[in-house]
Amino acid sequence: MLAVKGFRAAAVAANMRYKNRLDLGLIVAENPAAWAGVFTRNICRAAPVLWSAERAARGRGRAFLVNAGQANAQTGRRGEADCRRAAEVLADLIGLGPEEVLLASTGVIGQYVNMEALAAGLPALAAKLAPEGLVDFSRAILTTDTRAKTAAEEFELNGRPVAVWGCAKGSGMIAPDMATMLGFLLTDAEIEPGLLKEVLVEGAEISFNRVTIDGDTSTNDCLLAMASGAAGAGPVTGGESLTRFRAAAFGVMRSLARQIALDGEGATRLVTIRVRGAATAAEARLAARTVAESPLVKTAFFGCDANWGRLCMALGRSGANFDPYAVDIDLDDVPWIRAGVDNGQEAAASAVMKKPEYLIDIDLKAGGGEYEALTCDLSHEYVTINGSYRS
Amino acid sequence: MLAVKGFRAAAVAANMRYKNRLDLGLIVAENPAAWAGVFTRNICRAAPVLWSAERAARGRGRAFLVNAGQANAQTGRRGEADCRRAAEVLADLIGLGPEEVLLASTGVIGQYVNMEALAAGLPALAAKLAPEGLVDFSRAILTTDTRAKTAAEEFELNGRPVAVWGCAKGSGMIAPDMATMLGFLLTDAEIEPGLLKEVLVEGAEISFNRVTIDGDTSTNDCLLAMASGAAGAGPVTGGESLTRFRAAAFGVMRSLARQIALDGEGATRLVTIRVRGAATAAEARLAARTVAESPLVKTAFFGCDANWGRLCMALGRSGANFDPYAVDIDLDDVPWIRAGVDNGQEAAASAVMKKPEYLIDIDLKAGGGEYEALTCDLSHEYVTINGSYRS
Repeated sequence: MLAVKGFRAAAVAANMRYKNRLDLGLIVAENPAAWAGVFTRNICRAAPVLWSAERAARGRGRAFLVNAGQANAQTGRRGEADCRRAAEVLADLIGLGPEEVLLASTGVIGQYVNMEALAAGLPALAAKLAPEGLVDFSRAILTTDTRAKTAAEEFELNGRPVAVWGCAKGSGMIAPDMATMLGFLLTDAEIEPGLLKEVLVEGAEISFNRVTIDGDTSTNDCLLAMASGAAGAGPVTGGESLTRFRAAAFGVMRSLARQIALDGEGATRLVTIRVRGAATAAEARLAARTVAESPLVKTAFFGCDANWGRLCMALGRSGANFDPYAVDIDLDDVPWIRAGVDNGQEAAASAVMKKPEYLIDIDLKAGGGEYEALTCDLSHEYVTINGSYRS
Repeated sequence: MLAVKGFRAAAVAANMRYKNRLDLGLIVAENPAAWAGVFTRNICRAAPVLWSAERAARGRGRAFLVNAGQANAQTGRRGEADCRRAAEVLADLIGLGPEEVLLASTGVIGQYVNMEALAAGLPALAAKLAPEGLVDFSRAILTTDTRAKTAAEEFELNGRPVAVWGCAKGSGMIAPDMATMLGFLLTDAEIEPGLLKEVLVEGAEISFNRVTIDGDTSTNDCLLAMASGAAGAGPVTGGESLTRFRAAAFGVMRSLARQIALDGEGATRLVTIRVRGAATAAEARLAARTVAESPLVKTAFFGCDANWGRLCMALGRSGANFDPYAVDIDLDDVPWIRAGVDNGQEAAASAVMKKPEYLIDIDLKAGGGEYEALTCDLSHEYVTINGSYRS
């Protein structure tokens, strides 16, 4: 794994809700670091989102504390008090102020955090802190995910290597409009909080916000970043330094977004929906998202059924304006639909739809608007997972 | 069955796509009847929708011809020519003008109608026309529906009985915003086309448009009505006559809408989502529809999982404005959530969710807006049906 300097991390099985499985993770910057966050737009914001949004805006801090299993959402004043207490207990243990800790939670909405288990787990967590603890951290934040999602990139600045590392958890209740999940970005670049935030917001828009598993958006989604400056490569301010940093950060975020879509609840296929030629960029987004979230389209993906009429149905109800008999649709390199009607490609299209990953490229022929969404199929397994998530 | 005077109907197995199953249905008014239609707002309108919308606006006609299995949508000029030919062949057989025939189709989008089979089936269809043929007709319009959906009401006008009869087919690709399905309403009332259309539009809004199975909206949805006047009870114009006619027509439409939701693809539960106390009526609709269409909410219905946090998640992302810590939610008579937090009703709530039908009553405490949506759960069977619909 690529080393990102200036951080230590750890995870423990605190048995807060899951048993004998890493469920509490911590990242600590060795020195006060620039930080920034992007948070869910769901108006029912979880207590840790309220806590972290307020403190992330202050620009600098030291630690991220994350628990999986209980969302601490719709928990009112008690939920907020639990956040404060978690930050205070941790801060005491590792010698920080509680305001230097950002919190994130994921799990069942409406359940209070098991504070007893959390407090009991913190000393062991603090004792385990080590630079190589990020791998454990990336596992401790998972819920229904089937695998950890990490990504890293490196670039050179003033002759020295600078690293960007990230991890994320999915894998349902994920839709654009929002930060979409829990994501954590660490870098040893030196960068001001305001600029870090800009890169984070821009990067989220072209990565996490393009993923939609089910159109549902969590109360807890957040993307948090810390920059330690420990690479010693001088500041990222603008020009070439910013170009390189942005490329690395965007690469990490794009990789994580892709991994989230690939690991969508019950997903067996990763599908990119590209809409071109929309009347406006907003209509392209509307069209791509409607296709990407349509249950009928997504079950057809699952069934490997080259039922292109459902794409037209979804496009037609999306609110985008276009001539139904102008549309061209390609499926990877198969010229699937031409001028809105069947193009005799059933066999070729069916073969593509059996692949684990493919692109649906829709040209609405109505203008210059473009948008790309990442989605997965709707499978039996999605129903199983979400019909019994709490049990 | 209640007799609705002035109509004959029939159905045959024309083997257009399904084999040995009624798939072609016909209703003929004995004399020119007032008619009206409400059509899908999907901009990809099927050829029969284009045909019927234009002719329904003329106010009077004689026949409805419907096929199940092939939607004749996204079929371009050829699809339009097929419509004209179907109307012409039928009109010749039964002695009408082709403009006196409205057409409706349901089935796979993008497939051309099997015109050879259709034309071959028409003579037998015409020969079978009889007043009691409506039962067969109601079966011939089905696709993935598991049962026929019919309803009837009667009222008295000037001392004579007047009947309203209807049938419909669901059961996926159904969402409000639209006429939502194929529906047919017959009455022996005497009523002008304009007034019939008014009742139809109003009735659709409080019945079919409140049902959402999956948020997807067909290219083919339509609701067609004919009034024969054969009851001989004098005209429905306004006042008491209109009140009674409207009540009967609305009753039939509401019953059909309910039957569609009950027979939603793979549905095991019928759930009414009532939102009260929204800031505006539009926000109430947004909130109710977002809950009713959320995959995470609908899988929890399937799993009988009293996971109320998902309701808050859906409400919070709906676009409706409210205070997350003011919301009350009842589940039938269980006071489930109070002021946005858990109210200790897990056991009682779980018991209700095992029932085949229940009400979720949400008070946003933000104003006077109200809306009610009908939905069903998202089951394994939905995925099975729609992963392999064409095969």
